[in-house]
Amino acid sequence: MEPGPPGCSRPAEPGPRLRRLCGADQEASVALLSRARAEAELQRCVPAVAAVLPAGGSGERMGVPTPKQFCPILDRPLISYTLQALERVCWIKDIVVAVTRENMETMKGIIQRYQHQRISLVEAGVTRHRSIFSGLKALAQDQPDSQLSKPEVVIIHDAVRPFVEEDVLLKVVTAAKEHGAAGAIRPLVSTVICPSADGCLDQSLERARHRASEMPQAFLFDVIYEAYQQCSDYDLEFGTECLHLALKYCHIKAKLVEGSPDLWKVTYKRDLYAAESIIKERISQQICMVMDTKEDEELVGHRLEEMLKNEFSHVKVTSGALGHTGRDLQQIILEQCYNFVCVNVGAYEFEETQKLLDVLKESDLSILYPVVVISDEQKLQDSLRQGATIIATLIKERNSGLVGQLLVA
Amino acid sequence: MEPGPPGCSRPAEPGPRLRRLCGADQEASVALLSRARAEAELQRCVPAVAAVLPAGGSGERMGVPTPKQFCPILDRPLISYTLQALERVCWIKDIVVAVTRENMETMKGIIQRYQHQRISLVEAGVTRHRSIFSGLKALAQDQPDSQLSKPEVVIIHDAVRPFVEEDVLLKVVTAAKEHGAAGAIRPLVSTVICPSADGCLDQSLERARHRASEMPQAFLFDVIYEAYQQCSDYDLEFGTECLHLALKYCHIKAKLVEGSPDLWKVTYKRDLYAAESIIKERISQQICMVMDTKEDEELVGHRLEEMLKNEFSHVKVTSGALGHTGRDLQQIILEQCYNFVCVNVGAYEFEETQKLLDVLKESDLSILYPVVVISDEQKLQDSLRQGATIIATLIKERNSGLVGQLLVA
Repeated sequence: MEPGPPGCSRPAEPGPRLRRLCGADQEASVALLSRARAEAELQRCVPAVAAVLPAGGSGERMGVPTPKQFCPILDRPLISYTLQALERVCWIKDIVVAVTRENMETMKGIIQRYQHQRISLVEAGVTRHRSIFSGLKALAQDQPDSQLSKPEVVIIHDAVRPFVEEDVLLKVVTAAKEHGAAGAIRPLVSTVICPSADGCLDQSLERARHRASEMPQAFLFDVIYEAYQQCSDYDLEFGTECLHLALKYCHIKAKLVEGSPDLWKVTYKRDLYAAESIIKERISQQICMVMDTKEDEELVGHRLEEMLKNEFSHVKVTSGALGHTGRDLQQIILEQCYNFVCVNVGAYEFEETQKLLDVLKESDLSILYPVVVISDEQKLQDSLRQGATIIATLIKERNSGLVGQLLVA
Repeated sequence: MEPGPPGCSRPAEPGPRLRRLCGADQEASVALLSRARAEAELQRCVPAVAAVLPAGGSGERMGVPTPKQFCPILDRPLISYTLQALERVCWIKDIVVAVTRENMETMKGIIQRYQHQRISLVEAGVTRHRSIFSGLKALAQDQPDSQLSKPEVVIIHDAVRPFVEEDVLLKVVTAAKEHGAAGAIRPLVSTVICPSADGCLDQSLERARHRASEMPQAFLFDVIYEAYQQCSDYDLEFGTECLHLALKYCHIKAKLVEGSPDLWKVTYKRDLYAAESIIKERISQQICMVMDTKEDEELVGHRLEEMLKNEFSHVKVTSGALGHTGRDLQQIILEQCYNFVCVNVGAYEFEETQKLLDVLKESDLSILYPVVVISDEQKLQDSLRQGATIIATLIKERNSGLVGQLLVA
């Protein structure tokens, strides 16, 4: 198979991708639009932006041995989703990730496997602040032989906040350029209290007057680098809040930007569950149903399409692909839809379907390929309804245990 | 079918139950142990305890029209899980739920459908504090004709925290009896900051010195009722924190009790996803595999059991049930296991399996009953492995769209 156009390279496992799924043409035009908009923004406000991701944590709150940034979601490590979210933003020139020495090889493997770009690795420190400082030092070097160049603005983000959107990144960068520092905030979910030494309530804070400080944050590079250079060992050991350093050492009052709920940080095991569900939902919006014949497409395909289009944003029906020369299959693969459903009508002609499965499996696309047989022509309407339920189930659950099963509606 | 013993009544939909799943004998002995322990506790510290659940919220943060306490998780409203968690605690005598007038019928329907007990309904006020006050008033009446009696200690909990455990309830009740008030706390996940009027950073709080105030909380009834009677309209309109009222109006410094991560509040849509995954995990721990013959049980059943027991805490194999007189089926149903898998070996004898499905469907137990056929005797080991994968998938995903499907390993 021909590789895609440059800049559209596809990761080995398309299933868990976060990027909006679309056909090649659409993709190109979206990319162009996004680039045009981004270039306008660049000229206006963001001459040179880099990002630093501290990823040296051990994830002790998760209660699992794997550090949370490396926990798999649909078989792909959490940090890879976060990198993907940053990579989509073309005006972020460099992404510096700080990982511990023992995870360096793991991280290199992730970058290679998921074809991440513009990533530099540095060794993490023993605390969050020390890891960020490592990343900043790498950006500050600005040596002729260094791949990195000193940015005007640096974004600091968490490896475990995979759902960050371009919109909020642009807001914090723009605000940082104006104010020197900026950070995303969210309303408090719980009241914050201050316990006394004996574990009793001393004071409860007025919830409406306070906010949770979230990520991303952005800084004029010179401001935050100066702050880190000046700050005490105590700060580096026990502090966690970059905005606080900018205030304390550079007297910069950060601009606070209201963020959306999806900025949340994967902290506990339940957050992994939530992240998985969100990712599943995002990549389950497109279905391509492949029918045996034009007649089946007319008789069954379009009625199934009707039933399914309330639940999915894109439902497409094609036919004739199974009497294949390789070219028809090639065409299907080029659709770039990650949810294929073969629908056989009336007969268990599993052999042809099996051939399609085999070809899809051999391609490097790892496309999902559940199979549904609408068998009961006597009660077509009921069968169709059950078929639609099965299709929706397969697409949404996305469980490889059922791949290739002959499901009968 | 005979109803279960008193106190062990089963809700219409066993799937989403949180109670530990166990056989009838185990259940009885657990119940006895739990009762004995609870009675000892009662004498020591909890003479009369009631709970108040404000459930009048509109759930605007969820971004869905249904108030979050009524959002379905595996087809069952969230609040029903929370009620179940409180009901399990036998020393909580009354549970007063405050719901808005328009949701009163919905709530009555939920209580009936899931056979909730010890529940009284009161009309919610327009704010959280007013709803709690309604609940307290109902408990304070203590009229001869009232079903409720004034408790010594009252627990206040949220309808949207379904995973509360008896352990933390007992801790707050015990602490409230000693200190007058007590509440669960958790470490802060994010730094809390105080924005200035122009939306810039004024001050960031030291994260280690502060805590998030969570639920449950407990109070000597007289303390919290006094506080609500004295508090201002402003408090009732804009306040949210009961511990604060006890401090302000009764000078009671609440004892703060460290809670576990599962006390978290379902606030955003992602929390519903997380809750669903947690509930699925809890109710997917037991499998009962039903085989056609004793030979199949020996040949296939016990090998599947081996493969599955790493993933599930309870795997059981039975056979012979499909040559049924009704008595065999009765026996299977009495196992009280919610995950049945029929395993046919070598042949597609779907008819017998279908009979079992029908009987299970007709019983009021709504048991799940995926079906697996181990068909390929040539490559038994491979088939078994694939069969185990399919079984694990079905049990864990728990999607009714696949019920009754003939799945071939």
